[in-house]
Amino acid sequence: MKLENTTFKTPIHEISSLFYNENTMYMKRDDLQPFSFGGNKVRIARRILEDMYASGCDTLITYGNKRSNLCRVTTNMCAALGVKCYMISVTDDDHGVKKAFNGEMAHLFKAEVVECAKADVDATVAKVKETVIANGGKPYYINEAKGVVNQASTYINVYSEIIEQSKEFGGFDYIFCASGSGTTQAGLILGKLMHPDCENGPKIVGISTARVYERGVMKLNEHINGYFDFNGKEKPSNDKISAEINLSTDYLCGGYTFFDDDIKNACTDMLIKNGIELDPTYTGKAYVGCEKYLRDNGIKGKKVLFIHTGGLPLFFDLMNEN
Amino acid sequence: MKLENTTFKTPIHEISSLFYNENTMYMKRDDLQPFSFGGNKVRIARRILEDMYASGCDTLITYGNKRSNLCRVTTNMCAALGVKCYMISVTDDDHGVKKAFNGEMAHLFKAEVVECAKADVDATVAKVKETVIANGGKPYYINEAKGVVNQASTYINVYSEIIEQSKEFGGFDYIFCASGSGTTQAGLILGKLMHPDCENGPKIVGISTARVYERGVMKLNEHINGYFDFNGKEKPSNDKISAEINLSTDYLCGGYTFFDDDIKNACTDMLIKNGIELDPTYTGKAYVGCEKYLRDNGIKGKKVLFIHTGGLPLFFDLMNEN
Repeated sequence: MKLENTTFKTPIHEISSLFYNENTMYMKRDDLQPFSFGGNKVRIARRILEDMYASGCDTLITYGNKRSNLCRVTTNMCAALGVKCYMISVTDDDHGVKKAFNGEMAHLFKAEVVECAKADVDATVAKVKETVIANGGKPYYINEAKGVVNQASTYINVYSEIIEQSKEFGGFDYIFCASGSGTTQAGLILGKLMHPDCENGPKIVGISTARVYERGVMKLNEHINGYFDFNGKEKPSNDKISAEINLSTDYLCGGYTFFDDDIKNACTDMLIKNGIELDPTYTGKAYVGCEKYLRDNGIKGKKVLFIHTGGLPLFFDLMNEN
Repeated sequence: MKLENTTFKTPIHEISSLFYNENTMYMKRDDLQPFSFGGNKVRIARRILEDMYASGCDTLITYGNKRSNLCRVTTNMCAALGVKCYMISVTDDDHGVKKAFNGEMAHLFKAEVVECAKADVDATVAKVKETVIANGGKPYYINEAKGVVNQASTYINVYSEIIEQSKEFGGFDYIFCASGSGTTQAGLILGKLMHPDCENGPKIVGISTARVYERGVMKLNEHINGYFDFNGKEKPSNDKISAEINLSTDYLCGGYTFFDDDIKNACTDMLIKNGIELDPTYTGKAYVGCEKYLRDNGIKGKKVLFIHTGGLPLFFDLMNEN
């Protein structure tokens, strides 16, 4: 398998909205990325693997939980490329989930799954690294400085891709996306900050699926500043950066993995109305948040793009639970 | 939802083969069609719905069983478009299946599911039509003459699409696809027969997933001749048509829905090696047949395209069974 075949320029098209029809809704179909059931994590995993090779490393250490799309994609990509892979699986975030296709697949892809509590992550990663080195390998941990910069910079190019594609629709006023780790939103913001026409670009709004406001904004700032620092690039002013960080935590629904009937119904309603599935943990929560944000802020008559960041196996988890 | 947004020109890329490496394998990713989990049936359903509207009808009668991809896609498309839909569900073909996501989704899409035995299909369809007409509706049955011609002619354009795309790879020697109803294969053959450069086109081979040889070839002939007859177009000679009908029933594995370990393992191995899922009923059986056909016929050093015709929910059925 060739890494270059794992991603492509995904289409954008209009969709029927679920609750409110006072804006024109569009979707960027990153859920169609042609590897491991698609999603933003395919773009991110490809970048991580390319950097792992460039760094002379040979063993990936990935991080997540049973529901993690990033873990499914990274373990699959490692399996396809013949790269040894460890998965640090944080059990605190499981919240009682028994069966999750993403987690099952990490086993199918023969990743070495190492379970631990959140408090023990650093110690566990250190131990796994020691094991890798003792066996003559060179570990690459995705959540170390360089790995995080790579994750947060993947969507820089996607911002340009969207601006290019948006011409067909006369430009977008808003871009919405799910904001969990914050890397996708940070990448989009970086893309906008470095775009020659930044001033006229669409407003980027992240709908938090996990973090409370202070922590979410702190992480976005870390990702954005981290990129400029790591690459030794001239940084926009703090005010300019802050102005681009729009994170809504109003639709968090109690935190990571929690959802209400609106979110649950949106996952099947989006399929019924548009032939597109969502999931209650990430994209369904973010999409409902997007439409409610538009309503609650009195936004009307705008062109709104929602980025579908994937998570297809989680839709089938929901089907199994019903 | 707009019908035009349900299909797009899907990418082709090289893949790693599963068993034999003496040919270069490529895949046409029709599984990425951006509606209802993708597949060839999205293209076919779109054509059927367009013809239903053009015919002044307002109620679709679709046909299949619990595992049917066509039923999932047609019932979803009707739901998205607000079209009343009946599904004639043939219980003979269920072969003991209890849970199938495709069948569950037909209910989610609020299709009126009418179960019957194969022997009673004609009578059941007639009765459903009567009900529709009695309620002031105008029924369109997908398996009547015009519906079948539409199904069998959908892939005419896909043949041209493939020839155009194949230039990037220096042309293909073979095109393989799953052959169940035969409509996709018939469409490809029609596309080749009517292509200006027919003589130099790739050899099209269908791997039967259900029908024995005589019946499979008879149906392909019916589809191909039916298209020319219905459209009043000049027909190629019977010899020329026959020369293009290549149907292998050597990898049928006992008939529709039956599979062996090679097929079952191929469904996960394709995911592990290429990040692409197959299913044991259609694409997994056809892909294994494709590679075995190449081996059994001593074919080496060729460029071989396999069309991934979708069926993603059936992969998750398999995950549930394991």
